[in-house]
Amino acid sequence: MSYSRSQADIEIANRMADAARQAIAPYFRQTIQVDNKLAGGFDPVTAADRASETAMRAVLADLAPEDGILGEEFPDQPSLNGRKWVLDPIDGTRAFIAGLPTWTVLIALSQNGLPRIGMIDQPHIGERFVGWHGGATCSRGAETRPMATRKTGVLADAILATTDAYLFQGEESRAFDGLRQAVRLCRYGYDAYAYAMLAMGGLDLVVESGLQPYDVQALIPVVQGAGGVITNWRGGDCSGGGQVLAAAHPALHAEALNSLRSAAV
Amino acid sequence: MSYSRSQADIEIANRMADAARQAIAPYFRQTIQVDNKLAGGFDPVTAADRASETAMRAVLADLAPEDGILGEEFPDQPSLNGRKWVLDPIDGTRAFIAGLPTWTVLIALSQNGLPRIGMIDQPHIGERFVGWHGGATCSRGAETRPMATRKTGVLADAILATTDAYLFQGEESRAFDGLRQAVRLCRYGYDAYAYAMLAMGGLDLVVESGLQPYDVQALIPVVQGAGGVITNWRGGDCSGGGQVLAAAHPALHAEALNSLRSAAV
Repeated sequence: MSYSRSQADIEIANRMADAARQAIAPYFRQTIQVDNKLAGGFDPVTAADRASETAMRAVLADLAPEDGILGEEFPDQPSLNGRKWVLDPIDGTRAFIAGLPTWTVLIALSQNGLPRIGMIDQPHIGERFVGWHGGATCSRGAETRPMATRKTGVLADAILATTDAYLFQGEESRAFDGLRQAVRLCRYGYDAYAYAMLAMGGLDLVVESGLQPYDVQALIPVVQGAGGVITNWRGGDCSGGGQVLAAAHPALHAEALNSLRSAAV
Repeated sequence: MSYSRSQADIEIANRMADAARQAIAPYFRQTIQVDNKLAGGFDPVTAADRASETAMRAVLADLAPEDGILGEEFPDQPSLNGRKWVLDPIDGTRAFIAGLPTWTVLIALSQNGLPRIGMIDQPHIGERFVGWHGGATCSRGAETRPMATRKTGVLADAILATTDAYLFQGEESRAFDGLRQAVRLCRYGYDAYAYAMLAMGGLDLVVESGLQPYDVQALIPVVQGAGGVITNWRGGDCSGGGQVLAAAHPALHAEALNSLRSAAV
């Protein structure tokens, strides 16, 4: 994929993220209807989620009608050209309904099944994190700056994040606990925003499980473009979701993988 | 304290928060030196912390030289008039060093030992939350709007937050776990910003322990001014720090207190 091709696709993603920002704004920190999507658990889906995905799909219908779409809220649209946009209209809906500005809009462009461009957008703060093969940037207002991960090489120096430590069960929980006790510091509750902070050089490790493809595909080019490593808990491709480990540095990734591998599925 | 007196004091606090914003900006998301304040644990104190408190003290030296100061970083300044400013130059230093924009600057004005005005400022997002006897507002840029807590009356409907569930030990941990399992949803990792979100109507409960007076005094007028309740785990005054419970609604506060009281110290 050439540089100019990437730039053109990033522009499409920018248009989608702009549309999502506008669609979501009326709902954030307003009284909103929270549906219960899963009978068994609490999985809030809001009108904002649907408005966001609808707005992004409209941009694609206009600018790239032959591209496929995999989104959280609506049925798949098959690809006519091998390109597929993978969308999470609001990642971190639990943060969203609590008024916490760490939810994000996730946009990935995958080709032949692998994410080539990733975007993590936080509309309330106005931050947009973009990654592609060879680079990553953070934009806010008129300012854009390159991102690079920290060169943290050992667990004892690392800051670890996960969304919710209670999401881990059984062997996963034991493996995470071991890792948590080996690192310098652990933070909780940031969903995809944590991967953007890893790309920014603030966090060193992010560990999660139970992710969907639309939760993770946008994160891969952002983390890799900033110099980080992102895999499943076996060290392989994680674009299908499931267990995810992101690290600021290859040596740190190898150390963390040692802790998690026993719980890899 | 009359309305006009409150307004004049809020203006002093605004000047202090503006000064802190300017002092901190060069440090956030830059490579910074992290000292280890406590030999036994990890309590990062950065140059940003000291720059923030120094800037706020300079405003007070100029505008209110007879007022006392209790700050996290420098020795107490005795009060000559019964008024004391209680300052946390950066609450949430762990979030700060990880690049997460949920740290805050905390400013309280206490009179005769009780906090009368509280301010929670998040410079990166540009949000300022202010509370006083009878009201609370959120400002961002030119926009200021009143805040009011949600009228959540029962635990089963409540969203709970705490900074780090692993900070609770022994009986505290058991009590928190009971509460966590009784609520609809639990979020982690927001320090004082969580109390601002309770005042905004996003969160319903915040539970913490081990707080210092400078961690909590600014929160009290914000939560109370927005219609919430904030006490220690016995239901009494929490301005001295320690175990803190904030609730969006008195009925919810009573329910949560039932869960926590067995672990109250």
